[in-house]
Amino acid sequence: VIVSVLGVGLIGGSFALAARERLGATVRGFDPGGLDAALARGVVQEAAATPGEAVAGADLVLVAAPVGVLAETVAAALATGDATVTDVGSVKRGLPEHPRFIGGHPLAGAETAGVAHARADLFDGATWYLTPSAVSEGVRYERLHRALADIGAQPAAVDAQTHDRMLASVSHLPHVLANVLVSHAAASLGGEALPVTGPSFRDMTRVAGANTAIWADIYRANADALGDAIDDAIARLQEAKAALDGDVAAWNDAAAGDRRRLLEAELGGGMVHELRVAVPNRPGVVAEVALALGHAGVNIADMALSPAPDRASGTISLWIAGEDTARRAQELVEGLGLPVARA
Amino acid sequence: VIVSVLGVGLIGGSFALAARERLGATVRGFDPGGLDAALARGVVQEAAATPGEAVAGADLVLVAAPVGVLAETVAAALATGDATVTDVGSVKRGLPEHPRFIGGHPLAGAETAGVAHARADLFDGATWYLTPSAVSEGVRYERLHRALADIGAQPAAVDAQTHDRMLASVSHLPHVLANVLVSHAAASLGGEALPVTGPSFRDMTRVAGANTAIWADIYRANADALGDAIDDAIARLQEAKAALDGDVAAWNDAAAGDRRRLLEAELGGGMVHELRVAVPNRPGVVAEVALALGHAGVNIADMALSPAPDRASGTISLWIAGEDTARRAQELVEGLGLPVARA
Repeated sequence: VIVSVLGVGLIGGSFALAARERLGATVRGFDPGGLDAALARGVVQEAAATPGEAVAGADLVLVAAPVGVLAETVAAALATGDATVTDVGSVKRGLPEHPRFIGGHPLAGAETAGVAHARADLFDGATWYLTPSAVSEGVRYERLHRALADIGAQPAAVDAQTHDRMLASVSHLPHVLANVLVSHAAASLGGEALPVTGPSFRDMTRVAGANTAIWADIYRANADALGDAIDDAIARLQEAKAALDGDVAAWNDAAAGDRRRLLEAELGGGMVHELRVAVPNRPGVVAEVALALGHAGVNIADMALSPAPDRASGTISLWIAGEDTARRAQELVEGLGLPVARA
Repeated sequence: VIVSVLGVGLIGGSFALAARERLGATVRGFDPGGLDAALARGVVQEAAATPGEAVAGADLVLVAAPVGVLAETVAAALATGDATVTDVGSVKRGLPEHPRFIGGHPLAGAETAGVAHARADLFDGATWYLTPSAVSEGVRYERLHRALADIGAQPAAVDAQTHDRMLASVSHLPHVLANVLVSHAAASLGGEALPVTGPSFRDMTRVAGANTAIWADIYRANADALGDAIDDAIARLQEAKAALDGDVAAWNDAAAGDRRRLLEAELGGGMVHELRVAVPNRPGVVAEVALALGHAGVNIADMALSPAPDRASGTISLWIAGEDTARRAQELVEGLGLPVARA
């Protein structure tokens, strides 16, 4: 089996390592930035000088190019040969419809970039969306699905439009809102220092101004679905403003219900409990809590810190699935002498 | 010195403990929910049956009532006696203008409620906003300022309108946006499971549907400033949508600049560096990282986890102030065998 990877960074490189180790493939790479590091690490076995050379004779081609040049790179990969071609872009419309092409998007590892961080196990357990078009050949879909499952991922078919709408809602719109909030606050505060008011502002602006080289392309490529999501957010903000003079409690309760349902769906139906731990602000206290729970085998589904650099104290919020587990977690943390409140 | 506290929960109780320990005060309490726990813990020395009884003969009265009944409780505290009266509400307009009243708002400890968690050191280093009106007596302001500094807080004067605008921007609007995002996603996803797409969605919806008993009152009390903030957010979302067809890179860069300036102002001018650590998803790994940095005296200014319950890996983002410290942190984490990328 010959697998070609066009764009050998974190995602392409990890797929290359997994294809070699788990599919027994020979991996050929092409990267406009060069392949020295990938060859030195053994991430690819063969280096191609052009996309055409990479594709020739390959069985499977994975295009891991930036979103801005994705469509043209996919088209180049389809121009010759007989390989099944797939990609890993986070926006799935605007790509060629072709019998040999099936779009893809693994939900994994976008935070640490570069082939230096590539790992064969990057996709273990990760959802890997596949977006076949009406003309994609069924036998190629079935083979690609099996290959992805064999490298440890969980392939899931979804149409390109639904994919882009979902990602607009849970990834692209959150980034837009983070930008909006941080720019609003900067304008509103003027020269005032940012008040230290708990974790909400920090949490919500962490992704503000995310890497423009990546995100400008994503925003542009998903402008249709993201535009719709922005319109919906505007309508909901108008409702929120109206609720300030109406039944703001019902409005807030509805959001609480929506959050609970989303979290429970994500965690497979278990009821999620929140523990709030008041902690002194000293190095090592997060470690103590995490260790105490880790040693007891308690899994922390989610965690938020408000470290408060100038203050004597802070709060760790822990989300734990299952009432019994949450109660056990509370006992363990209280055993460290830290007060715990159930939210 | 006699200090009276109306509403003996986390904030009122902590102030009571601090007033006794650090001001040498005798503390009298009133709480409509009873004072058994506060008396048993020694948080108050005297229990009053009514607000009037609590205020009689007191030098300083701290009103720690819920925002919904705050104005009337402050008015009751001012009805008799000669005490200086202050409060701890998170919205500062709509309170009485009175020579003996000075509004207040400590930025501390709102996460774990109840007198059981009260601590004398809760306010150490915390900003404590004071919002004197035009008729507040100067000598009372000076005495209150000194008392708060003596219990460890950092009093800062601000007019009520500016206070409410700031809090709308950095606390109330973030809560509204979290509600909007979670309700948008619930509607957009329908029955689909929430895709596991990195920390942005989780981070931004953690505070969604926060405790309605507290937040409905806050939203209502600060409806004017919050309404303005919502309008500004809507205008910025409209700009964002327009940027999708225009210079979206410049729009994103502007947000990145705003975030950097806000973080630097908060941390006192030091440049903040972000490290992204790729971690296997096993109990104890957060602890290892936190311990390694804690033992070396490296302070983590902010931290975000994407634990990915179904996946083989996750990412810890660490924000560290100062280039030398950030480089040291990177070496320490890499020494644990974990790959680190600079964002």
